[in-house]
Amino acid sequence: MRERLKKDMDKLAREYTASVGFDVLLYNQDIDGSIAHARMLAKQKIISKKEADSIARTLESIREEIESGDFVPSEELEDIHMNIEARLIEKVGDVGRKLHTARSRNDQVALDMRLFVKEAISHTVDRLVELQQALVKVAESNKDVVVPGYTHLQRAQPVLLAHHLLAYFEMLQRDVERFGDCWIRTDVLPLGSGALAGVPYPIDREFLAQELNFSEISQNSMDAVSDRDFVIEYQAAASITMMHLSRLAEELVLWSSAEFGFIELDDAYATGSSIMPQKKNPDVAELARGKTGRVYGNLMAILTTMKALPLTYNRDMQEDKEVLFDTVNTLLSTLEVFAGMVASLKVNGEAARSAAEGGYILATDLADYLVKKGITFREAHGIVGRLVKYALGKGKTLAELKLSEYKKFSPQFGEDVYSITVDASIASRDAVGGTAMKQVARQLARAKKLIRGENG
Amino acid sequence: MRERLKKDMDKLAREYTASVGFDVLLYNQDIDGSIAHARMLAKQKIISKKEADSIARTLESIREEIESGDFVPSEELEDIHMNIEARLIEKVGDVGRKLHTARSRNDQVALDMRLFVKEAISHTVDRLVELQQALVKVAESNKDVVVPGYTHLQRAQPVLLAHHLLAYFEMLQRDVERFGDCWIRTDVLPLGSGALAGVPYPIDREFLAQELNFSEISQNSMDAVSDRDFVIEYQAAASITMMHLSRLAEELVLWSSAEFGFIELDDAYATGSSIMPQKKNPDVAELARGKTGRVYGNLMAILTTMKALPLTYNRDMQEDKEVLFDTVNTLLSTLEVFAGMVASLKVNGEAARSAAEGGYILATDLADYLVKKGITFREAHGIVGRLVKYALGKGKTLAELKLSEYKKFSPQFGEDVYSITVDASIASRDAVGGTAMKQVARQLARAKKLIRGENG
Amino acid sequence: MRERLKKDMDKLAREYTASVGFDVLLYNQDIDGSIAHARMLAKQKIISKKEADSIARTLESIREEIESGDFVPSEELEDIHMNIEARLIEKVGDVGRKLHTARSRNDQVALDMRLFVKEAISHTVDRLVELQQALVKVAESNKDVVVPGYTHLQRAQPVLLAHHLLAYFEMLQRDVERFGDCWIRTDVLPLGSGALAGVPYPIDREFLAQELNFSEISQNSMDAVSDRDFVIEYQAAASITMMHLSRLAEELVLWSSAEFGFIELDDAYATGSSIMPQKKNPDVAELARGKTGRVYGNLMAILTTMKALPLTYNRDMQEDKEVLFDTVNTLLSTLEVFAGMVASLKVNGEAARSAAEGGYILATDLADYLVKKGITFREAHGIVGRLVKYALGKGKTLAELKLSEYKKFSPQFGEDVYSITVDASIASRDAVGGTAMKQVARQLARAKKLIRGENG
Amino acid sequence: MRERLKKDMDKLAREYTASVGFDVLLYNQDIDGSIAHARMLAKQKIISKKEADSIARTLESIREEIESGDFVPSEELEDIHMNIEARLIEKVGDVGRKLHTARSRNDQVALDMRLFVKEAISHTVDRLVELQQALVKVAESNKDVVVPGYTHLQRAQPVLLAHHLLAYFEMLQRDVERFGDCWIRTDVLPLGSGALAGVPYPIDREFLAQELNFSEISQNSMDAVSDRDFVIEYQAAASITMMHLSRLAEELVLWSSAEFGFIELDDAYATGSSIMPQKKNPDVAELARGKTGRVYGNLMAILTTMKALPLTYNRDMQEDKEVLFDTVNTLLSTLEVFAGMVASLKVNGEAARSAAEGGYILATDLADYLVKKGITFREAHGIVGRLVKYALGKGKTLAELKLSEYKKFSPQFGEDVYSITVDASIASRDAVGGTAMKQVARQLARAKKLIRGENG
Repeated sequence: MRERLKKDMDKLAREYTASVGFDVLLYNQDIDGSIAHARMLAKQKIISKKEADSIARTLESIREEIESGDFVPSEELEDIHMNIEARLIEKVGDVGRKLHTARSRNDQVALDMRLFVKEAISHTVDRLVELQQALVKVAESNKDVVVPGYTHLQRAQPVLLAHHLLAYFEMLQRDVERFGDCWIRTDVLPLGSGALAGVPYPIDREFLAQELNFSEISQNSMDAVSDRDFVIEYQAAASITMMHLSRLAEELVLWSSAEFGFIELDDAYATGSSIMPQKKNPDVAELARGKTGRVYGNLMAILTTMKALPLTYNRDMQEDKEVLFDTVNTLLSTLEVFAGMVASLKVNGEAARSAAEGGYILATDLADYLVKKGITFREAHGIVGRLVKYALGKGKTLAELKLSEYKKFSPQFGEDVYSITVDASIASRDAVGGTAMKQVARQLARAKKLIRGENG
Repeated sequence: MRERLKKDMDKLAREYTASVGFDVLLYNQDIDGSIAHARMLAKQKIISKKEADSIARTLESIREEIESGDFVPSEELEDIHMNIEARLIEKVGDVGRKLHTARSRNDQVALDMRLFVKEAISHTVDRLVELQQALVKVAESNKDVVVPGYTHLQRAQPVLLAHHLLAYFEMLQRDVERFGDCWIRTDVLPLGSGALAGVPYPIDREFLAQELNFSEISQNSMDAVSDRDFVIEYQAAASITMMHLSRLAEELVLWSSAEFGFIELDDAYATGSSIMPQKKNPDVAELARGKTGRVYGNLMAILTTMKALPLTYNRDMQEDKEVLFDTVNTLLSTLEVFAGMVASLKVNGEAARSAAEGGYILATDLADYLVKKGITFREAHGIVGRLVKYALGKGKTLAELKLSEYKKFSPQFGEDVYSITVDASIASRDAVGGTAMKQVARQLARAKKLIRGENG
Repeated sequence: MRERLKKDMDKLAREYTASVGFDVLLYNQDIDGSIAHARMLAKQKIISKKEADSIARTLESIREEIESGDFVPSEELEDIHMNIEARLIEKVGDVGRKLHTARSRNDQVALDMRLFVKEAISHTVDRLVELQQALVKVAESNKDVVVPGYTHLQRAQPVLLAHHLLAYFEMLQRDVERFGDCWIRTDVLPLGSGALAGVPYPIDREFLAQELNFSEISQNSMDAVSDRDFVIEYQAAASITMMHLSRLAEELVLWSSAEFGFIELDDAYATGSSIMPQKKNPDVAELARGKTGRVYGNLMAILTTMKALPLTYNRDMQEDKEVLFDTVNTLLSTLEVFAGMVASLKVNGEAARSAAEGGYILATDLADYLVKKGITFREAHGIVGRLVKYALGKGKTLAELKLSEYKKFSPQFGEDVYSITVDASIASRDAVGGTAMKQVARQLARAKKLIRGENG
Repeated sequence: MRERLKKDMDKLAREYTASVGFDVLLYNQDIDGSIAHARMLAKQKIISKKEADSIARTLESIREEIESGDFVPSEELEDIHMNIEARLIEKVGDVGRKLHTARSRNDQVALDMRLFVKEAISHTVDRLVELQQALVKVAESNKDVVVPGYTHLQRAQPVLLAHHLLAYFEMLQRDVERFGDCWIRTDVLPLGSGALAGVPYPIDREFLAQELNFSEISQNSMDAVSDRDFVIEYQAAASITMMHLSRLAEELVLWSSAEFGFIELDDAYATGSSIMPQKKNPDVAELARGKTGRVYGNLMAILTTMKALPLTYNRDMQEDKEVLFDTVNTLLSTLEVFAGMVASLKVNGEAARSAAEGGYILATDLADYLVKKGITFREAHGIVGRLVKYALGKGKTLAELKLSEYKKFSPQFGEDVYSITVDASIASRDAVGGTAMKQVARQLARAKKLIRGENG
């Protein structure tokens, strides 16, 4: 490729530009793409059927060599694509020199990346569903557990733990859908775009699409070799998923603290301390929370890299790979370890209920009680606010107040005020999406359908 | 709302937390949502029909007051929602105090944001299509113009300008689809989720959805008040669009430089200099390129804000607004001004063709010529590489070389080598997506169908 | 400025590029810079002394007009600089047309931004010190309060609350230093660089530097008009400060939760709920935590904007302003409101001590106890780990274990094991930087010196 | 360390949390720190001199084992610190178990990171200076070369190439200073802070600081184990440097395009194409420009990771390492390869001068000419603007206009208008920082002093 140049590349420059250290990950995609390309060339009589067979067979043998470690790609050949082509020529001779007919590295790399992202999406969705299953399992095993629901990290209203966990189910369900949308835009064959302008051979791109399981072919060659939207879109979806996991992680850390004590992580998912013998730390959750930064950073990296690049391919775009690979790895491993961690955690239902019963958590119910007695909501809210201030001053809970005390704030209060309990509060929130047990059972049923791939 | 607290808020703290300075933008959404809520309360007999009518009528009058400037929301009332409610009570009396029944600011704000994002998506898609139209117009008016296609900003292969411009059409088409996907996940009604746990009233959420044109209702109240995925997803899609526009901007800047000279921007889209009287600067394109940073930054802001927040609502989430508003503004105005700038630019076809004919841009065609004579592609590539090095040394273009000189590099070269021209090169790239005139005409036809909203 | 162009700017394009909507903030800097420039021109006899006086006087009157609202800059004149110049000419006539001699908007804007950043740094440092004072005040007023020190949000070892608070003092002290370093690189006069190449007039840049209080003058005109490092550096320092404040905010939220209960925020810094009458929410702390995203995003924005811009000035750089102004505002208001919130919070010393005494927080002390009896640390750590597991199994605290039980794990345990207490533990950590009361007193003394501007 | 827990860690969780795969890079820092710690323990009689000697000797042998590959750290032992400690105990027996006395992994890791960053800064500054030298070399070898200076990528005013290159010298000089400031805040010893609260042993932290070449010791143990400001600050400085390099890269790409043609990169720093035999691509510059994204992303990652972490150590902070290592690697290799690429590039002085003489680049000089004839600058600017519009209409350059044509626009034009040339224009910009040859010579002299480490 350097025939037109007068000297070899400077060693540092070669190392700086070489990508084989990481794009070796794409060897499978590259070989699959090359075999399909050879078959298409034969079908179109650009090379002979025999040549195509020989190329395909040899590429399969190279795949085995890579997997067994018998063939180690060399940095001198820059990237995995040139390494495989050179090895092909070495093994099969002159015929191998025909493989690059009607193809450029630009459309070849674009193809490999799309094959890679499709596979990554497929794995990601599987792992998302596994974590959904773990959440459903814990929700189902703890159907009666009540926890304080929080806003501003202040106890707000009591909810079922299952309801709380199913909020995460919903987030992950949106993630599944987002990755599905990304799939559609990734599932477009770029091969046949050449370096940028198309190729001057009678190729059959629909055949290539069929061979490689693409639903569509790209419509503009310059866009096809310049487009990395699908890489960015995967990273954006991954960032949102990591955001969701960071929220779950935060709650696991909080809940397993001495102060909350609502859950205990299984010892298999906790670590000790080098100096403090008593420690049981939720490192997995913390680390996942921390890795959110890395995934966000990778998104920012690829967005920045693509900014203001003129058409078509520029070498900047080689930077699409490492950050993507890192994001895929991080996301898959985080989802996998979370599934195990969530499924194995133990719930301390008593501690949770006790927290849910503390404080003035039923104040909203008290206001709604007054509304049902005919007071407007805003007025009722004000009455209960003053009542809470009074109770705080007396150091009493709401349940401890006497009816006469209640009546000082509104004559509408009656004996039935004492029937406002945590369980009654939960049971009363019975519209779709509410925390009443019936609604949560509905949500659970829907969740299980979605996990099975049926409509929710 | 502060009945339980013993003093007023510190002035600085109030200013710090007040959002009415920016969420006033949501007044329309807020009023629409409140009217629908009042109607639903009446339908469910939670308030009377007459009360609902009176509330609705008064809210409409407040809308007019805001639009005419007669009612100016006050910072003391914190946000637009409390301002409108207070004004309602002021105007209509006690009945107004019933509006907040079965509703919390948490589900109210979530509703308003979803209504806002749906409207923003709708405008965004319109503007994307307008810019697509401008691109198609310039492509059609310059059907015969040839430009050098570039990789690495080096002239690579000649292409039609229309082909180059249609690459941007494809990018914008993906943007249209991405915003469409975002719409689906935004189009979910959160109202009825209360503060976090649902509400203890017999509400009809399907009715609300109908009234407010939502296709679905949320399934989990805790998720519904905590979810800002749709805001992030809009911002991620906007970031990708701005990345596309930054690439187009870069090319407009390059092409209107003295060195390229392929286009001239209309004077209405150029600026002068305070000191250099001769300057005609492509400021609009530059500024759009620069604003890419702002939109990326806004995406990073909301992702960071949402990281590791425990359920459910936390005040951090108020920060979802300003960055979203800024992104929507930036994106809409950039798309709008680009449509005008692109539609009015003048193409200098001669300068472009002259650049496309310079240098060794037909070298790939020369290699493909040899392939057709039976040489393998890799070998042909090497032969032409050496030929280019030779020509460079002689200071000659390929067309200036004698046949005898060609033959030194390969006996396969014949007289027909001189029939390799820029036009022949373009014509030869005739597979789907290639730059041949026939293919570009196909792309144009498809583009016009897509603009009309038909399948491409 | 558009004499060379044939038409007015498109309305949308003008609105898109106009900056006066935000750079009006720089009117003071612009007028100061122009007055100094006029004086220098006079000193160098480029204009007459009388002309300079007239310009200076009129600029001062324009300053008053802007401040009183009598002169409202117009968007048609693009930016604050052109507005002021046009107003000057309007008021003073032809002489005003001389002000732009030996100056370009490029060096003028660079100057204004540097003057602005210097002022911003000065305010920022003042506010940082005020927050340091608040921390010191709370630390001093609660000298004896013990809290659990945490790692992984698990109780780890007891510490003094003052020690904990002084950790934030240290962070803010580094912030002060970082802004000081940024000052040095901002304090360089760019004026006299012209559009990019310098100016062909016998100007005196040292005189300008003196007039405008700059310590140095820029050494290369192309760098001077292209450099926005000082803007980025301010934003990077601000991001680190916001990170610190987000950590403090997180702790204030945790500590004021029902579960921790170590502090109570003053009612003046808390908010209520629209629906839940009992709520007292730490909104200020949450919002500050959320605003961290905005400041990070602004940093990312300016970095992205500046990426890959060729020299010298490009219009992209106009985007340096809004994100900077937003960061400065956010940082200053956050620091200010934090100073008040911290200074007014109430510490619940009993709750804190009770938490610090719970659990197995003294396990490390137990290990160190064994080390002093001659056991290696690693072995001691293992012994205590097993002891804790045993105690957990028995449902006992360490203090509740009998000596005979201790001895099962190591014969080295003696009666003195019961003298390991929270207070003894704290007192024992008596090297520099440790939590022993003596060390904390040292830290407090140092902090007060640093606040007074003396060396710590 | 897991004595208190009942089971081994889940395999996936162990892999997920293990850091030895990357923190093995810190083996040198870890061993240096441990040797110093052992010596201090001996000095303070916490262990015996003989024990310390034995520990130090064995640690040195482990260092050799790691370097020779004889000892391969195992993932089961989580991180490099535990691996080295375990190997120490294996080799030296019980004495090794004493090393962790008065130390926690928290202060140990903080120490190792600071040692690493100090070394990274030192290398970074060396490489910055090497690139400065390359710029100075090219500037000096091309002292007379004139290029168009650009604003908005439009030719603005002629400048010396040396002046243009020295703008980058200035940027890198600020980078050197920024890393120097970062050094000061990194150069603080955290060891002796224990897990978070200090240690209950009579340690000598000043002695440790001396042994390990730190100028200061940390003042608050909780801050010391929680602080990663120095990591962020390195990354922020690296981001600014990469921004500078991305600008230089952009210009190298532009200048080596066919359209500009001002320079030719050495073949050792260029690559060919897999399909286009004529291509000579500036891949190194492009890749550096692309890697800017990665470095920005790493900064965003660590900022996000640290957001809102409560004190003190949380496992999230393990994420500080990989992104830092990647940034250091990227920055050092980019600087190194740029030094070679810049030093070896060839300047095409004729093409550059020809571009500098084209167009209306001397229009500002024409305006300044009129100012010297007594016209105000604003008026002169307008006259020349109209003159340029006239010349454009006639298709003439300024030099081609007749004096009678000039006089139509102002009677002040005289014969001497033809003495306005590119060289005269450059010579006239003779204030400090201007492009006049005398000023550029001054800059060069200053640059060479700064490179030698003297004050500029």
